[in-house]
Amino acid sequence: MKYIAEILTIGNEILSGRTINTNASHIARRLTSIGFNIRRMTVAMDELNEISAVFRESLSRNPNIIISSGGLGPTYDDKTSEGLAIALNLPLVYNELALKQIQAKYEKLNLEITEERRKMALMPKGAIPVENEQGIAPGIYIEYNGVEILSTPGVPREMEAVLEQFIAKYLKTKPNVVYKEISIFVEGIMESAIAPYVTQLVKKYDLYIKTHPKGYELSHPSLEIQIAGSSENEKEILNRIELCKNDIIQVINKLNGKIIESQQ
Amino acid sequence: MKYIAEILTIGNEILSGRTINTNASHIARRLTSIGFNIRRMTVAMDELNEISAVFRESLSRNPNIIISSGGLGPTYDDKTSEGLAIALNLPLVYNELALKQIQAKYEKLNLEITEERRKMALMPKGAIPVENEQGIAPGIYIEYNGVEILSTPGVPREMEAVLEQFIAKYLKTKPNVVYKEISIFVEGIMESAIAPYVTQLVKKYDLYIKTHPKGYELSHPSLEIQIAGSSENEKEILNRIELCKNDIIQVINKLNGKIIESQQ
Repeated sequence: MKYIAEILTIGNEILSGRTINTNASHIARRLTSIGFNIRRMTVAMDELNEISAVFRESLSRNPNIIISSGGLGPTYDDKTSEGLAIALNLPLVYNELALKQIQAKYEKLNLEITEERRKMALMPKGAIPVENEQGIAPGIYIEYNGVEILSTPGVPREMEAVLEQFIAKYLKTKPNVVYKEISIFVEGIMESAIAPYVTQLVKKYDLYIKTHPKGYELSHPSLEIQIAGSSENEKEILNRIELCKNDIIQVINKLNGKIIESQQ
Repeated sequence: MKYIAEILTIGNEILSGRTINTNASHIARRLTSIGFNIRRMTVAMDELNEISAVFRESLSRNPNIIISSGGLGPTYDDKTSEGLAIALNLPLVYNELALKQIQAKYEKLNLEITEERRKMALMPKGAIPVENEQGIAPGIYIEYNGVEILSTPGVPREMEAVLEQFIAKYLKTKPNVVYKEISIFVEGIMESAIAPYVTQLVKKYDLYIKTHPKGYELSHPSLEIQIAGSSENEKEILNRIELCKNDIIQVINKLNGKIIESQQ
């Protein structure tokens, strides 16, 4: 059984290219490490229509989990919570627990709780606030039609804190698979030359094999060959990858390639 | 009038988090610089169904242009061209011009043209190959229902080369607007404190103002305040941003913030 995740990022700064979407990569790596397959990443503008549309579209593809980052702060353009509520057709309400957490943080500093600050406690009805140890806006966790949804803030260290909290305390979908990958770095082989062998080995071992060209295909070909797969049995997947690696090394020798490095 | 672009990235290595999607950011920055608004970014797996789905969905939102990167190489998992053909309901055929370009490149090195190499000339019928000065696989340019579509390879320097060629030689949708932005870096103001002023100024000047929290909201608040907008008239937009900046400086002083840097 496959465990499918989708990752959403909310923020005009990603869409204009001024910020690189490292949040999506971090979430993807973390979910991959615990056995999820990420099927789709989407970046949406800070606009209600767009945010609700990407949540709705993602839900319609019925993944196991959806993780979003961005748009949970106190400013006028932080609209993820409202967009999520629209997508789920739920009222947007002040979450009592979230409000208490936020109030406590500001009170510690003798700061009044303004409308903008209270706004961070607005969540779709029935959501659970996920503690944000690195900032103020809590994450938002809600289950909808069997899909687990988590919204995290956009500041990377806050996103990471909320994501870890979610994985440790709330996530119900626990893939019982281990994911393993290795890489072989090789020089002197063109991607187009090794391509037919890779096709055969993918079939033979049911593994994911991808060649990443690093040099110049024609003048100085250089490749990273990635072999990856997952299984319920750690020994079994390690063994399968090892057998596939041995076959690839034979192909590399046949094509007069030179192995530079092999990474476990 | 707004000029809308969508950016697609094809590749499992982005979805697993092993590669950060810098291609999408580069394309976004380049398109923003010539006056486009990027409305959506999507990352899809190296699977035909997924690739054709993201092109189809993007086309259904009717942007002016769609730029994709990734999946044009010689290996079994390079499926962008076929996925695009399916999305456009066009046959996938060997493009004569592309075939000649590819053959010439391999002949120079006395290399035979195998099936895998010929594959890079397969394009939706009616497409125009866009010269790739940094590699072999040409870009694919095709117009469909008034939407200009460009597919570029995934290797960053090849993507950049094909994108520049496309902008210089093929792109018909030329926004007649200039885009400008400035940033003010300020310490000692919490995002939640400046939020209500920002809301007012956005309305007053019809500009995009975004606060990017850089420090710790409670203990060491630090913000980048970005002001951006576009106009058909360069002087007009520079003037509008300048007036807004002056108002923001007044707000910063009122809130006892300290301006660290101001970037044009």
